[in-house]
Amino acid sequence: MGERESADALLRSAIGGDRRALARLLSVVEAGGAPFRVIAPQIFAAGRGTHTVGLTGAPGAGKSTLTDALVTEVRRHGSRVAVVAVDPSSPLSGGAILGDRVRLRQQNVVDDDVYVRSMASRGQLGGLSLAVPEVIRTLDAAGWPVVLIETVGVGQSEVAITENADTTVVVLNPGWGDEVQANKAGLLEIADVLVVNKADRPGVQATVRDLERMLHLGKVQPWAPAVLTTIATDGTGVDRLWQVITDHQRFLAETGEREHRRAQRRIAEVRERVLHELTDVSSRVERSHAGALIIGALAKGEIDPVTASDRLIRLAAGRMADAR
Amino acid sequence: MGERESADALLRSAIGGDRRALARLLSVVEAGGAPFRVIAPQIFAAGRGTHTVGLTGAPGAGKSTLTDALVTEVRRHGSRVAVVAVDPSSPLSGGAILGDRVRLRQQNVVDDDVYVRSMASRGQLGGLSLAVPEVIRTLDAAGWPVVLIETVGVGQSEVAITENADTTVVVLNPGWGDEVQANKAGLLEIADVLVVNKADRPGVQATVRDLERMLHLGKVQPWAPAVLTTIATDGTGVDRLWQVITDHQRFLAETGEREHRRAQRRIAEVRERVLHELTDVSSRVERSHAGALIIGALAKGEIDPVTASDRLIRLAAGRMADAR
Repeated sequence: MGERESADALLRSAIGGDRRALARLLSVVEAGGAPFRVIAPQIFAAGRGTHTVGLTGAPGAGKSTLTDALVTEVRRHGSRVAVVAVDPSSPLSGGAILGDRVRLRQQNVVDDDVYVRSMASRGQLGGLSLAVPEVIRTLDAAGWPVVLIETVGVGQSEVAITENADTTVVVLNPGWGDEVQANKAGLLEIADVLVVNKADRPGVQATVRDLERMLHLGKVQPWAPAVLTTIATDGTGVDRLWQVITDHQRFLAETGEREHRRAQRRIAEVRERVLHELTDVSSRVERSHAGALIIGALAKGEIDPVTASDRLIRLAAGRMADAR
Repeated sequence: MGERESADALLRSAIGGDRRALARLLSVVEAGGAPFRVIAPQIFAAGRGTHTVGLTGAPGAGKSTLTDALVTEVRRHGSRVAVVAVDPSSPLSGGAILGDRVRLRQQNVVDDDVYVRSMASRGQLGGLSLAVPEVIRTLDAAGWPVVLIETVGVGQSEVAITENADTTVVVLNPGWGDEVQANKAGLLEIADVLVVNKADRPGVQATVRDLERMLHLGKVQPWAPAVLTTIATDGTGVDRLWQVITDHQRFLAETGEREHRRAQRRIAEVRERVLHELTDVSSRVERSHAGALIIGALAKGEIDPVTASDRLIRLAAGRMADAR
């Protein structure tokens, strides 16, 4: 399968602008194994400070089309832009599926200054939510100054993934209330920008008023989320949307809020990573030979549950100490 | 506060029949700390094989009154009986609240061959679900051959607690469908015995037929759950209920199912205990001085999340190895 390349060499090539190296590097990052762990500090150190924009909202709200329209708008301003499309419900991952889940217009697909990466869960949401921030860091290191993160669906996990972004755009439609009733408050809470897409449909002004009223019910914040209207299919309102996103970017930078938020996200990420690894170690220990002997003695009633737990934890501690 | 007694001495006294020592021992067991851990193997080894009966069902179904009626019935057969009343929603725990949450008639309250223990969550459901099986083991070691476990409510956690029993009794009322619709299938699945209590109310035969029909939809099992009717307030049908419970006990013993189930429960318990302790260690490590330095460096961006996780896990491994 070709020559063996170290993750380190892939990282150097990706930083140098090699798109194929970047794609392979991202697969190493997503896998999250030892090769990734070795280069994780270098990826972090190589970060240049990309601005990340998360798009979330009800299925069918037009997130994919709006993402494509935003890509076109960002390119109009001369900036390079990457898209990370996350589908926690799909078992397929990898860079090869663009044009499938992400529907970019042809001019964006062939544009060397546009990069698309699809990510899926492979059944492990814990793994996915750990991988997304590392994929963003890798794109940052590789010199992509804007990263758009698009998720499928509006479940808890999808919203959590969108929260990896500096700016969260919630995409709704006229008469949105019926579809996402249960999640309404949660969506408004995370929104830095609210977009009523498909604004050529009836009821758009009522929906905008409805949203503005709900936003005013909340407490006064230094950043007041704007409510915008777009028609993603013909690009109407997308210039204004990008303007507000860059306003928010400036607001975050000037107030120090960006660094504060990123620090908080890193801490949350470490907590999740530690818990994930501890759980992983304990299940591997249970399946090991020594672990199976302990479980066997427990099942036969030769030892009690507290003794069995203590022995398994001692085994786990040994493995954790060895592994690092 | 009196002389200091070792947990070991409390256990010896409790095994010898001292009720006050048992109450204090149970508090040590519930606390789950180092004194308990030292004697956990002795408690387990002293077990004589008590039969445990869990009662669960909709709030207001009459579980408390039925528990009292069962205590009376068990006493009529000459056996000693203990009651563990679990309320995950209450912050109060300890043995002093009997007559409050558990409504036993006076003759049972003053009976030296009846023992009641109330347990509550103190806000930590993980702790409670770990404590219940150890409390049962302690009662077993202290020579209580029958333990009735009564839970308040029918949430997931309450059902999980009831599953610590050898025999699970699901208590319903005529026309039960409206109250517990969402949980119907789950309740039928865990039931070894179904009781339609308040059988003097209208609709009892329809409810019995309804339940029997639903049970027959399930796959054929070596033990077919019986559907019984009781009027707990006057004791009607409680003799038959106890008969079926002892039939189930014999079935479990003869088929080897009892040991199989208990082994499975012990394994599940150990898994929960290991995860609980690992989570606990990781949060204590994060709050330690060394942990706070790592989190601080992460927040400032001096180290990356993977490095921070690795360092926290190494700290945790050290603590885990030291603690055992």
